[in-house]
Amino acid sequence: MNCEVADSTVKPSSSSYQRLSSHNFRELLDSVDAFLFDCDGVIWKGDKLIDGIPEALHMLRSSGKKLVFVTNNSTKSRKQFSKKFHTLGIPVSEDEIFSSSFAAAMYLKVHNFPMDKKVYAIGEEGMLEELMLAGFTALGGPVSFPHGVPEPTLQDDGKKTLDLKSGRVFEHDKSVGAVIVGLDQYINFYKLQYGTLCVRENPGCLFIATNRDAVGHLTDLQEWPGAGCMVAAMCGSTQKEPIVVGKPSTFLMDFLLQKYNITTSRMCMVGDRLDTDILFGQNSGCHTLLVLSGVTNLATLLDPANDIKPDYYTDKVSDILKLME
Amino acid sequence: MNCEVADSTVKPSSSSYQRLSSHNFRELLDSVDAFLFDCDGVIWKGDKLIDGIPEALHMLRSSGKKLVFVTNNSTKSRKQFSKKFHTLGIPVSEDEIFSSSFAAAMYLKVHNFPMDKKVYAIGEEGMLEELMLAGFTALGGPVSFPHGVPEPTLQDDGKKTLDLKSGRVFEHDKSVGAVIVGLDQYINFYKLQYGTLCVRENPGCLFIATNRDAVGHLTDLQEWPGAGCMVAAMCGSTQKEPIVVGKPSTFLMDFLLQKYNITTSRMCMVGDRLDTDILFGQNSGCHTLLVLSGVTNLATLLDPANDIKPDYYTDKVSDILKLME
Repeated sequence: MNCEVADSTVKPSSSSYQRLSSHNFRELLDSVDAFLFDCDGVIWKGDKLIDGIPEALHMLRSSGKKLVFVTNNSTKSRKQFSKKFHTLGIPVSEDEIFSSSFAAAMYLKVHNFPMDKKVYAIGEEGMLEELMLAGFTALGGPVSFPHGVPEPTLQDDGKKTLDLKSGRVFEHDKSVGAVIVGLDQYINFYKLQYGTLCVRENPGCLFIATNRDAVGHLTDLQEWPGAGCMVAAMCGSTQKEPIVVGKPSTFLMDFLLQKYNITTSRMCMVGDRLDTDILFGQNSGCHTLLVLSGVTNLATLLDPANDIKPDYYTDKVSDILKLME
Repeated sequence: MNCEVADSTVKPSSSSYQRLSSHNFRELLDSVDAFLFDCDGVIWKGDKLIDGIPEALHMLRSSGKKLVFVTNNSTKSRKQFSKKFHTLGIPVSEDEIFSSSFAAAMYLKVHNFPMDKKVYAIGEEGMLEELMLAGFTALGGPVSFPHGVPEPTLQDDGKKTLDLKSGRVFEHDKSVGAVIVGLDQYINFYKLQYGTLCVRENPGCLFIATNRDAVGHLTDLQEWPGAGCMVAAMCGSTQKEPIVVGKPSTFLMDFLLQKYNITTSRMCMVGDRLDTDILFGQNSGCHTLLVLSGVTNLATLLDPANDIKPDYYTDKVSDILKLME
């Protein structure tokens, strides 16, 4: 169309935003080859799909668009996310999923983390699985892989108690070279002390956060403290700031670009959080679409104090079905 | 470069603090009527007295000085602290002790916290006891006082687990009007969710921190995450900042002044932390003495990046015995 060049509204921009309409959605669709979706609050809430998701994703795939899922949820591995998608009736393969625990494992890999060093994980099963799949030895989680084999009962620090008697010393493994912190519903004082000792006392020990989301929809009806809660606790005791590998960091984008031969200006990031999803999209040079089906409501978006502005916003992903009619 | 040499010869503006000597200690003693002591890292580490403490305190009392103990440790009530002092062979009465859990209870009292509202406590027994003594109804801790009577098994949230099934809602008490956070070795996801829901959803709910110490000597041989760790976790999930009632806040000083008819310029604060003890002393207009027997070492004190400078410093409290000879 000859009006395409003149219309600047379809270009990524952080200064203005519009409600998604049939007009601008058509333009967006034409200017994008891949849609990047956040999951919690966008695709599902807890274990419940948000209305119309299967139909909307099917429509985008039928239009020839690549679909990619970029999630800060650190509790599941890519494999576990793929399984969840299938259970919910949406066929998504492992390599279409870019999650924050995968990012943490990849961060260690690309920075040549020594294989004889260990990783202390404040996180759930998915974090441990991604670390194992990348070949690392991890301690601390609900499942442990001290020799590359899961040993569920050996090292579940979520169940450990403390001995605060005089003369006793809380021992930690001096060969831990990285502490990775994500969402952990089994967070306790034992893990916080273990992680703190590693960061404070093991020379050069990395402190990595999968993400810093304040809250998230662990269940369909409610928000719960997110990884940002556990990460802040570790910042509080270590007085250090972590390396963040999940959104809004663009670390994951390199892996995405390796897989898909698409420039970021022809991608659209769809998410429910301004400070992770939309910022990630903007930092990467993608188009951005905020959906109001998760943690951000219209009042927060429109608040003059908010300076993270998506290109577009709409109530939920499946609105695009109507806009296509 | 020349300027580099010149820079390195420039001494930090350290004229404001001196090592304690027999000369300046005599002067300090003459200009002070009360010594305010921090406890952890100053008087004891865990359950072990620091060398020479009984003799040093006895000498100060014999010189006619008032002794006051101002501690950020929120895990014990004033009553429990007094008992600990007696067990360690040092007679200290309840009303000579000003602790951060007492401060939290007094904060509610002076701000006319409605007696029909409840308090959610992320803390240990001492916090619950101070709240009860002030007449408040507290929930959440290892011991609960729902009707002003301890009910140890009714509401120990430190032992509670979560139900993250779809369709379930985590309920919280809508009449909670304040969440108080201190050091809590029984911290868990249940408490973090409970406290977060109260702060986010109960209109006007106060968020109070007893203190923000990053670490502390829970045991004699080691430091452990302090209240700053739990407080940061709550900041991470609520995205709010707390009211801090312990050091370096001067809130407790009003209660101290009510009891002792001594101007702050004739007090000396003795502590092991720069960012709590020394800052509290400075904020209150006291003389300040840093002891190196706790979390601060000489390198940290002398670091040019450190801008909190005590009037005096010495290795440990009992150094004053030699200086008096």
